[in-house]
Amino acid sequence: MTEIPSAAAGPGDRGPVHTVPVSTEAGVCAAAGFTAAGVEAGFKKSGGTDLALVVNNGPEHAVAAQFTSNRVAAAPVHWSREVARQGNARAVVLNSGGANACTGPEGFQNAHTTAELVAQGLGIGAGDVLVCSTGLIGEQLPMDVVRRGVPEAVAALAAGQQAGLSAATAIMTTDTVPKQACAGGSGWTVGGMAKGAGMLAPGLATMLVVLTTDALLPADSLSAALGQACRVTFNRTDSDGCMSTNDTVVLMASGASGRVPEQEEFTRALTAVCHSLAQQLITDAEGAAHDIAVTTVGAATETEAEDVSRAVARSNLFKTAVFGNDPNWGRVLSAVGTTQAQFDPDRLDVTINGVTVCRNGAIGDPREGVDLAASRAVDVEIDLKTGDARATVWTNDLTHDYVEENSAYSS
Amino acid sequence: MTEIPSAAAGPGDRGPVHTVPVSTEAGVCAAAGFTAAGVEAGFKKSGGTDLALVVNNGPEHAVAAQFTSNRVAAAPVHWSREVARQGNARAVVLNSGGANACTGPEGFQNAHTTAELVAQGLGIGAGDVLVCSTGLIGEQLPMDVVRRGVPEAVAALAAGQQAGLSAATAIMTTDTVPKQACAGGSGWTVGGMAKGAGMLAPGLATMLVVLTTDALLPADSLSAALGQACRVTFNRTDSDGCMSTNDTVVLMASGASGRVPEQEEFTRALTAVCHSLAQQLITDAEGAAHDIAVTTVGAATETEAEDVSRAVARSNLFKTAVFGNDPNWGRVLSAVGTTQAQFDPDRLDVTINGVTVCRNGAIGDPREGVDLAASRAVDVEIDLKTGDARATVWTNDLTHDYVEENSAYSS
Repeated sequence: MTEIPSAAAGPGDRGPVHTVPVSTEAGVCAAAGFTAAGVEAGFKKSGGTDLALVVNNGPEHAVAAQFTSNRVAAAPVHWSREVARQGNARAVVLNSGGANACTGPEGFQNAHTTAELVAQGLGIGAGDVLVCSTGLIGEQLPMDVVRRGVPEAVAALAAGQQAGLSAATAIMTTDTVPKQACAGGSGWTVGGMAKGAGMLAPGLATMLVVLTTDALLPADSLSAALGQACRVTFNRTDSDGCMSTNDTVVLMASGASGRVPEQEEFTRALTAVCHSLAQQLITDAEGAAHDIAVTTVGAATETEAEDVSRAVARSNLFKTAVFGNDPNWGRVLSAVGTTQAQFDPDRLDVTINGVTVCRNGAIGDPREGVDLAASRAVDVEIDLKTGDARATVWTNDLTHDYVEENSAYSS
Repeated sequence: MTEIPSAAAGPGDRGPVHTVPVSTEAGVCAAAGFTAAGVEAGFKKSGGTDLALVVNNGPEHAVAAQFTSNRVAAAPVHWSREVARQGNARAVVLNSGGANACTGPEGFQNAHTTAELVAQGLGIGAGDVLVCSTGLIGEQLPMDVVRRGVPEAVAALAAGQQAGLSAATAIMTTDTVPKQACAGGSGWTVGGMAKGAGMLAPGLATMLVVLTTDALLPADSLSAALGQACRVTFNRTDSDGCMSTNDTVVLMASGASGRVPEQEEFTRALTAVCHSLAQQLITDAEGAAHDIAVTTVGAATETEAEDVSRAVARSNLFKTAVFGNDPNWGRVLSAVGTTQAQFDPDRLDVTINGVTVCRNGAIGDPREGVDLAASRAVDVEIDLKTGDARATVWTNDLTHDYVEENSAYSS
């Protein structure tokens, strides 16, 4: 069990989130009413499992989802957006090894066919099946692989921790570890799995997330909780400023616990699970050597705090400096100066891992006091000294391995 | 003599710019009435010349300048902004080896003292001397070095090509070559020098540029021409999305030719010189293996064309793909999709080095037809098929050498 780190607390992050204990031992099958599977269909040339299925066995089938805000959205996003709009769904099918993005009308037809095949296997309607894909953009899905894999996945469906882990493993691409988290309330549970290791940016990352709960909640309650949880977790995870065409976060509620949680209590637990998954994404980001939390405090508004944190989190110069274990606060100030937030440049403080290296916009305590070589975690705090709002954005350093993985990915 | 490449032409770039021939053999001393020097004062621990001086000997002393839009501006920017505001200046002093940024009141005093020392040497007022600095942020200038170096630079002042080259060499930091350009009209000349090799981004780059002309033009004409030239050259040069605290572009007019050019003719020649210098900056950008020109055509407005080009030019994923010689158009579309420009995702075309790899938002001609390994130049054209506007943004690929140079820079 881990606690949400204090970076997530404070007025900017809606207080008591950090009091919810989260386990990373179980994922989509932690909640009652769900079965899952992960099988090797043959999408990935490198081998390994690559098709996952998560089924909500009810009694209820409420669903909410968030999708990429990228206007170039993948075919499965177009399909799943329509399914989620009704507020009901019974299954999510996910494949790695191909994004089915920028694939035209044929790509949409292939997403539809995938849903049909799942529906046939489960004896439900295609309109109850969400589809998620991840992998290379601009290639058609191999439909023979889909036709072979879906019945296998249906046959492999099971309840319990191992089934959840199989599903979490099958959606990995350049991820090095499966990512799961769960948390509970009084008699109900919420859990989830995620994949994503690059292209992480606001408005969601290249990231597929399936969340499940046995709480008894209608779709509009799920939707409100999911929007709030994503806003302060996934949407503040910005590994490389690149927004994917395929991002999807799905939350399904089975009602199997028979319990109706308070909206606020449920949102807290859901946020804690999302926060844990987001941190797992950052920790496993392609080629990263440091995990960086950029917190802006003393801002006039939470939006301005987020803008400042994001500007720093996106500075390639700062991110390469961190890779070089250099607490280069000049590059922090350069990034802060590009924003429209309210501040006086001559009053800015920058603190890195507890050392205030910049005080009132000029040289502060000696930067030699910061030993980044000794720490994977880098906490940057910028004090705008304007108001009371704060926000944290999480990112990584920019490393040789990032360049290597992303220059070699499609070859 | 080189011609402005066609990427700079078209409606988005004000047409006939590309007909002005530019030479890169001479710089700030190409125009009559200017002397220059570059000396080894001792700012750079690595040795080499590091203090440059450019003097306008008149008869006129009109000046115009553009400065960083970064709100965390360096002390010399604050000083020079006040000098340029009057419309008259007689000299620019520039040092490499220290940015004098984020240095508080002491830093401003040091910029002022530097101007005073130059003024004493030349027998003019400090209010006629612009100051530019480049190097590490957050360190005070060593004033003993300034006191020793300025008289040496004054003593070394000379006219002619060699003096201009000395000045252009003394302002280099991680630049590998000095950068000069000049062009002429009927009886008058405009020339300039530039430094900058990283942190190149909109609203100017980490970039110091001094432009000189012997044309007879008042400060407001210079200012209008400079604004227009910067807008389509330096402000569309975006190496790594990072905006510096020190960027300055100064244009001084001596009137020594006695000729009064047409405003439009002068703007064309000035733009051609700025374009050449901007291309030299991109070609010499830190660790770059490819020079990328991202042109958006068929846009509703020039602003939207520029927004789309810039989004692609800032995509770390696309830039690493280019480093890997991969014409990854999916990463181009991912970046285009994050903008608010008017387009239909299903009508987008992407052409890379002449091959239309994406047609109507989906798979186009085989990407194998693009051989990026054989070409340093990468021309990306995105057709939004919405209107007639176009704009080009120039950038580089993201390479191991970029990470290396920027992670090791301050150590």
